[in-house]
Amino acid sequence: MMKPELILPAREVKPRDKGLTVLIDNGAPLNLFKDTINSASDYIDFVKFGWGTSLVTTFIQQKIDYLGVHNVEYFFGGTLFEKFLNKDKIDDFYNYCKQFNCNYIEISNGTVALSNTNKARFIRDFATEFTVFSEVGNKDASKSRDQSSAEWIEYIHEDMEAGAKKVITEARESGTGGICQEDGKVRTDIFEQLTDSGISFEQLIFEAPTKAMQTFFIQQVGSNVNLANIPLSDVISLETLRLGLRSDTFYLDV
Amino acid sequence: MMKPELILPAREVKPRDKGLTVLIDNGAPLNLFKDTINSASDYIDFVKFGWGTSLVTTFIQQKIDYLGVHNVEYFFGGTLFEKFLNKDKIDDFYNYCKQFNCNYIEISNGTVALSNTNKARFIRDFATEFTVFSEVGNKDASKSRDQSSAEWIEYIHEDMEAGAKKVITEARESGTGGICQEDGKVRTDIFEQLTDSGISFEQLIFEAPTKAMQTFFIQQVGSNVNLANIPLSDVISLETLRLGLRSDTFYLDV
Amino acid sequence: MMKPELILPAREVKPRDKGLTVLIDNGAPLNLFKDTINSASDYIDFVKFGWGTSLVTTFIQQKIDYLGVHNVEYFFGGTLFEKFLNKDKIDDFYNYCKQFNCNYIEISNGTVALSNTNKARFIRDFATEFTVFSEVGNKDASKSRDQSSAEWIEYIHEDMEAGAKKVITEARESGTGGICQEDGKVRTDIFEQLTDSGISFEQLIFEAPTKAMQTFFIQQVGSNVNLANIPLSDVISLETLRLGLRSDTFYLDV
Repeated sequence: MMKPELILPAREVKPRDKGLTVLIDNGAPLNLFKDTINSASDYIDFVKFGWGTSLVTTFIQQKIDYLGVHNVEYFFGGTLFEKFLNKDKIDDFYNYCKQFNCNYIEISNGTVALSNTNKARFIRDFATEFTVFSEVGNKDASKSRDQSSAEWIEYIHEDMEAGAKKVITEARESGTGGICQEDGKVRTDIFEQLTDSGISFEQLIFEAPTKAMQTFFIQQVGSNVNLANIPLSDVISLETLRLGLRSDTFYLDV
Repeated sequence: MMKPELILPAREVKPRDKGLTVLIDNGAPLNLFKDTINSASDYIDFVKFGWGTSLVTTFIQQKIDYLGVHNVEYFFGGTLFEKFLNKDKIDDFYNYCKQFNCNYIEISNGTVALSNTNKARFIRDFATEFTVFSEVGNKDASKSRDQSSAEWIEYIHEDMEAGAKKVITEARESGTGGICQEDGKVRTDIFEQLTDSGISFEQLIFEAPTKAMQTFFIQQVGSNVNLANIPLSDVISLETLRLGLRSDTFYLDV
Repeated sequence: MMKPELILPAREVKPRDKGLTVLIDNGAPLNLFKDTINSASDYIDFVKFGWGTSLVTTFIQQKIDYLGVHNVEYFFGGTLFEKFLNKDKIDDFYNYCKQFNCNYIEISNGTVALSNTNKARFIRDFATEFTVFSEVGNKDASKSRDQSSAEWIEYIHEDMEAGAKKVITEARESGTGGICQEDGKVRTDIFEQLTDSGISFEQLIFEAPTKAMQTFFIQQVGSNVNLANIPLSDVISLETLRLGLRSDTFYLDV
């Protein structure tokens, strides 16, 4: 029998610190969610329950239990943190995460008016009990345009110094805002300054909901780049991009 | 334990007359269909079996039976009515709806050449045995462009006077034609004239298949606007938009 | 009870030689895959396991077994052939197809630098043991632009003479490259020259992943045109387009 692995590049295996795939669950029905995890759990490191979906998901506990069985970690989207913050109920957010035995939380300021310095305070606080992923970038397209690459680097440094384990770069569920131009392409000014900044790519997670974005980061960083906001339906497709098994990354250096 | 409801606006509960969510089934396989309904039935008021899909859906009876168990109503897309009409077989359409114990039917003229006055005659006839949802707007983009906002208001009034329980505004499955401009944005001339017309928003159902359209109507009308042509995969996402749990409607007045 | 068939045009039934629907599986989870097949197997002739997805699909054998039960044939995407070729491991490709008892294989040169004449040699070789579908067209948009309609006709003839049972025209999973212009529309220069060439439409399979492309080919060729790269979620929608049950093909001549 032939050995397909002969033609494939090396991939980190779970639990891994780079080459992470973070799916975004936008509210998939329970059986489809389980089916997705069960069919590809080797390729899935995290599920993010997007924005505030967890609050209206009937079977959220069942989803979380199922992830545990398959060694997949999870966290709630940063917008949920921001909603509790906006309602002045951060203690409730803390309790909510504790109620679901979260090991990870995401702290962001993509929607609310919260300076990065004040965001960093929350990172510092929550880092005492959770592993914190912070997020940099604004969900609003025009505010994103006004954010310089220098600010991006500054905020990433500030978040890491405050205790963020990894920093996520914003691109929404749709590949807009944040690190994207309005045409959906990655802002190369930010990416190049990141490359020059000395920040390790292992400490970054790039939101990359579209094939074009996934391809960009894999070609620039390599098979084992950390990627987030991957639609549930894209988990196998992404793995083939990482492995040079699709036209877009066919000639990937391995 | 924290109470998430502390941060959420009030939503009408089923059975409700406003805040309706009408899903469009474009032919989902049976188990995915059931999974979707079972995972979120509190948020789903109706399923529309899009255009003529019911005629080629092997398990249509099983889908309808499952909706009954979860207190979700259903109707066939207006294009099915138009197809039978075009074949001069309206009696067969009547029998088809009776065969599936429909309480609701949709009467439209989005494709066939049928004046609104003649459409209203069908509304009047069918209203004696069914609850009728009528539809206003053309599926063809260029014909839609030629339809003035005054005509929209006139047709809505005519349909309601003929006995339509609610009037649906056309936007297709894709967010094109009907009330949409060719770039997919809602025609504000129609929407503004609707607002000024004295027609209650409770009597209207806006087709809003895209997040941008859903956001527009929720921001303009409120959490409890009636929305249709919601993809099965969007039911939870829409509910978060209604509740201000996503960035796009984060600051919704509640 | 009414007879819906009264209003529908005739469709070829399985096993059929024209009117083929070829789904593309981009890595769907196992139960969704089975659900899709089970709900609509009368409308599905082939599943293509897109590009190299089969190599990273945990339950590939289970998928293939399930297709057998429902009389659906299958093959691996041409990019898999090209990957093995690029690694100089064509024997392994042969063994891989044998291992999964493939009756059909796809031979393409959409990504690798392989002249059509050399592609035809592989067609000739593999045709001794498999039914070969060849593919014409380049996945790269700018290379596609440089390929004249005369070259398309020449390559199709060359592939058929080498033993290809049918020739597939490239359009990717997204409706880009190959027979598409950069705006996603079908290149009418190629289509018109095909029509004039004397090649039977029964010998061609058009990749048509979007509704616009499906509509184009159904209107040009008829209900029983062969179409490929149909998303799993589109099987019922496509069938309604073939039958004039959707607005886009409502007035289809039957």
